[in-house]
This record gives sequence, C-alpha cells and structure tokens, in this order.
Amino acid sequence: MKTIKLNEVPAAVLESPEVRGVRKQVPVGVADGTPTMSLRVFTVEPGGYTPFHAHPWEHINYILAGEGELLNEAGERRAIAAGDYALVLPDEMHQFRNTGDSELQFICLVPRDHE
Amino acid sequence: MKTIKLNEVPAAVLESPEVRGVRKQVPVGVADGTPTMSLRVFTVEPGGYTPFHAHPWEHINYILAGEGELLNEAGERRAIAAGDYALVLPDEMHQFRNTGDSELQFICLVPRDHE
Repeated sequence: MKTIKLNEVPAAVLESPEVRGVRKQVPVGVADGTPTMSLRVFTVEPGGYTPFHAHPWEHINYILAGEGELLNEAGERRAIAAGDYALVLPDEMHQFRNTGDSELQFICLVPRDHE
Repeated sequence: MKTIKLNEVPAAVLESPEVRGVRKQVPVGVADGTPTMSLRVFTVEPGGYTPFHAHPWEHINYILAGEGELLNEAGERRAIAAGDYALVLPDEMHQFRNTGDSELQFICLVPRDHE
C-alpha cells in the first residue's frame, strides 16, 4: 500500500522534436510493483503539446487542471478541461495540446509495460 | 476516442452489508472497449465506507474530493485527501472510509476484467 502527493514525485522534462513544454511524473507505477497498470501525470505549459502519435495500447485520462484540446486522426479537436475524463483506444492517433493561459495537467493511465 | 464529464455518467448505489453510503460510476471502461483497464469513480457519504476486503488485483487511486482514511490489513489508517494518489497491491486488505463532513470521492482503476 502506498499514498503519495504529486509534489513528492520527481518530474522529468520530455525531450523530443515532437513534444513541447511537457513534464512527466509517475506517482504510481512499475517501481511500486503494479502488476497491470501505471499512472503517469503530464504537465503541459501554455502553447505546449504531446506527440501526435499512435500505439497499440489505450490511454485513460483525467484532466486535473487547465484547458486544451485532444486531436484525433481526422484532425478533429475535442475541447478538454479540468474534470473531464478521456479514452484513447489502441492505434488511434492522438495529441494533447494546451490552448489555455495556465498549465494543462492530466493523468494518463497505461498498461504497466508502456509506462 | 471519448471524452466525458462525471455528471454525464449514471451512478449506481452499492448495496451490501459491508458497504455504507457508496455510489459507483464508470466514466471509462469495458462498455467503451478498453482492452486493459477500467476507471471507476466512487462517492462515499460522510460516515460511509467501502468493503474491508482483498482481491488478487491492484487498485490505483486518485482522490478527487473530500478527506478520509485508507485502512490496511494491520488496521493502520493512512489519511487521504483530495489530490492524493494511492496504490493497493494485490491481496492487500483495504477499506476507504469517509471521516470528513463532505463527500469523499475518488478514482479507482482496476484491470478491465474486474470492473
């Protein structure tokens, strides 16, 4: 059993040409012995974005703070804001973009092998 | 791809002698085609609690609102409050109790077969 607050979790800045202004934290995951799932938190600066990509596993998301949009393969943009839940199915192209003036922060669950 | 707000999700009251004042919602889960994980939200009334039990799969939790405690097998009580993350490993006895004056609400992730 474990309980932890986000400010106790180290953050790593994601470095990639496909990413802008994104930090990653893992409050609960592989290092804790989770057999199935891993919970990551991403914090995206205003104007920042995650990669526009796809992979053969799902994301389950909860938006903790801020506002932005979630893009799909067709280029459609779904507005997302604090309090929203989201699902990205396997092999769906997707990208999270911060369109607001404050940080966009969200939980992103993945199968533990893809932490 | 799906986005949804919690107030759009139907709630079921849990009926069991081991449970008091608990509602369950599933914003993202099996009905959406998730291959691995399911995200449930439990809302516990003041004085309410979930079952004190164990099962061979993990919980990953995020506390959305309120305050309470998470009990373990030894009867130890960890304080939990909005913003905290928690992990219950497989086969650990556990119970969530609302010790506050407002609703305790938390995300509870499980492998999809145990939604």
